[in-house]
Amino acid sequence: MELLKKMCKIHAPSGEEAAMKEFLLDHIKKNQDNWKVKPTIHFGDGFQDNLILVFGNKPRTAIFAHLDSIGFTVKYNNEIVKIGGPVTTEGIVLVGKDTKGNVEGKLIKKEEKLFIDIDREIERGTSLTFKADFRDTDNFVQSCYMDNRLGVWNCLEVAKTLENGIIVFSSWEEHGGGSVGYLGGFIYETYGVKQALISDITWVTEGVKHGEGCAISLRDSGIPRRSFVNKIVSIARNSQIPFQLEVENAGGSDGNGLQKSNYPWDWCFVGAPEDNVHSPDEKVHKKDIFSMASLYKKLLEEL
Amino acid sequence: MELLKKMCKIHAPSGEEAAMKEFLLDHIKKNQDNWKVKPTIHFGDGFQDNLILVFGNKPRTAIFAHLDSIGFTVKYNNEIVKIGGPVTTEGIVLVGKDTKGNVEGKLIKKEEKLFIDIDREIERGTSLTFKADFRDTDNFVQSCYMDNRLGVWNCLEVAKTLENGIIVFSSWEEHGGGSVGYLGGFIYETYGVKQALISDITWVTEGVKHGEGCAISLRDSGIPRRSFVNKIVSIARNSQIPFQLEVENAGGSDGNGLQKSNYPWDWCFVGAPEDNVHSPDEKVHKKDIFSMASLYKKLLEEL
Amino acid sequence: MELLKKMCKIHAPSGEEAAMKEFLLDHIKKNQDNWKVKPTIHFGDGFQDNLILVFGNKPRTAIFAHLDSIGFTVKYNNEIVKIGGPVTTEGIVLVGKDTKGNVEGKLIKKEEKLFIDIDREIERGTSLTFKADFRDTDNFVQSCYMDNRLGVWNCLEVAKTLENGIIVFSSWEEHGGGSVGYLGGFIYETYGVKQALISDITWVTEGVKHGEGCAISLRDSGIPRRSFVNKIVSIARNSQIPFQLEVENAGGSDGNGLQKSNYPWDWCFVGAPEDNVHSPDEKVHKKDIFSMASLYKKLLEEL
Repeated sequence: MELLKKMCKIHAPSGEEAAMKEFLLDHIKKNQDNWKVKPTIHFGDGFQDNLILVFGNKPRTAIFAHLDSIGFTVKYNNEIVKIGGPVTTEGIVLVGKDTKGNVEGKLIKKEEKLFIDIDREIERGTSLTFKADFRDTDNFVQSCYMDNRLGVWNCLEVAKTLENGIIVFSSWEEHGGGSVGYLGGFIYETYGVKQALISDITWVTEGVKHGEGCAISLRDSGIPRRSFVNKIVSIARNSQIPFQLEVENAGGSDGNGLQKSNYPWDWCFVGAPEDNVHSPDEKVHKKDIFSMASLYKKLLEEL
Repeated sequence: MELLKKMCKIHAPSGEEAAMKEFLLDHIKKNQDNWKVKPTIHFGDGFQDNLILVFGNKPRTAIFAHLDSIGFTVKYNNEIVKIGGPVTTEGIVLVGKDTKGNVEGKLIKKEEKLFIDIDREIERGTSLTFKADFRDTDNFVQSCYMDNRLGVWNCLEVAKTLENGIIVFSSWEEHGGGSVGYLGGFIYETYGVKQALISDITWVTEGVKHGEGCAISLRDSGIPRRSFVNKIVSIARNSQIPFQLEVENAGGSDGNGLQKSNYPWDWCFVGAPEDNVHSPDEKVHKKDIFSMASLYKKLLEEL
Repeated sequence: MELLKKMCKIHAPSGEEAAMKEFLLDHIKKNQDNWKVKPTIHFGDGFQDNLILVFGNKPRTAIFAHLDSIGFTVKYNNEIVKIGGPVTTEGIVLVGKDTKGNVEGKLIKKEEKLFIDIDREIERGTSLTFKADFRDTDNFVQSCYMDNRLGVWNCLEVAKTLENGIIVFSSWEEHGGGSVGYLGGFIYETYGVKQALISDITWVTEGVKHGEGCAISLRDSGIPRRSFVNKIVSIARNSQIPFQLEVENAGGSDGNGLQKSNYPWDWCFVGAPEDNVHSPDEKVHKKDIFSMASLYKKLLEEL
């Protein structure tokens, strides 16, 4: 879990994914010689801070994992406003950096507004993220930003043995979206691929429990095409890998972005569930993490 | 009205439009020899469960009718969540199917949650629709899913004599949209067509009454380009066909999806009004149905 | 300010931008011989009522200014519904035109509904705008529709000396958007340009004051890519032109439309702040107007 721990500390809220991109480019460079297939990497001009890895000559499915995290932006007089939907419990420790140096302070509230409690004025527009406290126990990993550094970690696991397939690292998922439309368009037009799996983290709920396997989402706020979802469930059933079926009417993912894009994507959300969503204490069961990686490997082979 | 009656019974909530697609492909196959022009049909790979019929060599206008209906998805322990915006009056009869067989039960409420009242646990993700009770009287037809099986029926009426034009059967209109962007893109790029009529059902209101003709919507939540709408009103005025002008600030249609897509579509909603919107008792005046079909034929000729 | 005054009076709510388009085409025709570079103009078929001006052979940045304004649509019995988000204080004078002639009347409220107070029934669908009262003092200009006729005016100022760059006049920004997706697509595919500046008007707030220079927005409801925004701030800092940094979590612009489009646009909102937003009394400090024009000239040279 050292790789995951490292990634949970990287400061990359929506709009500032560059640090995650650099980390991944470096990781890929150092590790790809040990991967079964060396991928073609699309990045840079025309791709903003996103990355696309293409494995093999016959990719049929693309995995999408978002690089960005939730956080806050400093407004005026140390007031802060949300990036995405973070919890805002008083006392949460936030970190960032402006031209005067590192920033660290607790979240406080005054008359329904949020502030960072610190003894100097932070520069306007400075972004803040949760201070990472990574906890690795026998059964669980816990930290801020399991959503979605764990989805990214899952892609890097799959990458080790992937023969044909595409991995996409996207931006802005937590705040307004806007990258998967053109990334999906590039993939559809260049490789003819239109099947997508969303490698992201979901919620522990009444119907989805810790330790019972990765969740396959039948729907959330978005409704994927049922015939595609059925294929995935069928492969999962035949795989012996534990999994849980999820049905929600709220929440969304890059799947919605693909659906609303001008390309005919089929998509399905497949991801481990977490407790303490969008807090510094996001907690995921290790069995669900391993189930997720195993299921993705199987799906990329059989879809 | 036998064709309409058949279609109102087909189980095809958003995401599961395949049954409507199959029904239409079969209907077209059986009937197209009696149509003035035999259309080119685009469907299958790259079109999900949508259909595009192209009539003649010089199409100028496309009609969009959505295949999907509102409904419910089974969550956990027979709780149900909405697909689109159905009414949720207790006692409404819902039907569906899971691997254990047919499902039929009444909608009930417990502590602000919705459930289907039935003596076994329905499988997660099973979709439910209203049980159809089609009523055909002298002046009215009444059933669930006039919205939008009547819009589809209208297209099949127009198809009989259409010489140049396009008919699109789309998906997900009731829940998030996502198909007309790429369907419109395909049409624009392949045929250069960018005029759209939205064949869908609207509301009986203070300003739009039963039996006074099909409504031409000047706006709803979306505002179409006025110069295009004016052309349509002008053709309608010269046609002797009764119609009503509608102005709303809520509600939307595939028109919004076209407007937000990356193509320069002009669009206008033209459709009969119904009472008891999004319930099992959607009621439309026959005069308005015939006005709608006549107006579409005229518009496809003159636009 | 005569040009600005003229434009503030033009009736062009969302969906009816044609009048602004005609005014601009005429203005360009009359003035372009005095401009440093004569632009290529894209308009007409396939562009709806939008305009794209391309200056020089090597454009790198596009300025987007929306043509449309907020307003109202007449519903039934002189009830009116909003176009975009206008203020609705009773007594505001509204103007428009239907086939019976000019319309002028005061906004009134009855049981939470809005009406225009006038002695005849206005035709359904008639659009109404604020009656313009343009006030030009030593320090301020004040009128309805500074948002966004001032953004358009800024483009016409920049046009005088622009050597390489693109100016886009867009539609529907105040109500649902839908034009910048395809306009941006055309520009990206034809000219390879993917840097955008949003020439629009923002709010005087706790952090952004009258007379302290044009605002560069670090974020609003949308979050632009930080590395692009940083470039703009850095050029502004080196320019000696006064400016203010803005951070908001609400409000949006054509920037959001570009972000959600299927093209990899970087965008930043750069515009003067106004008081009395979306009212007949929008008020902007002249220093901020001149700062805005100067900053755009600098940015178009250096970006």
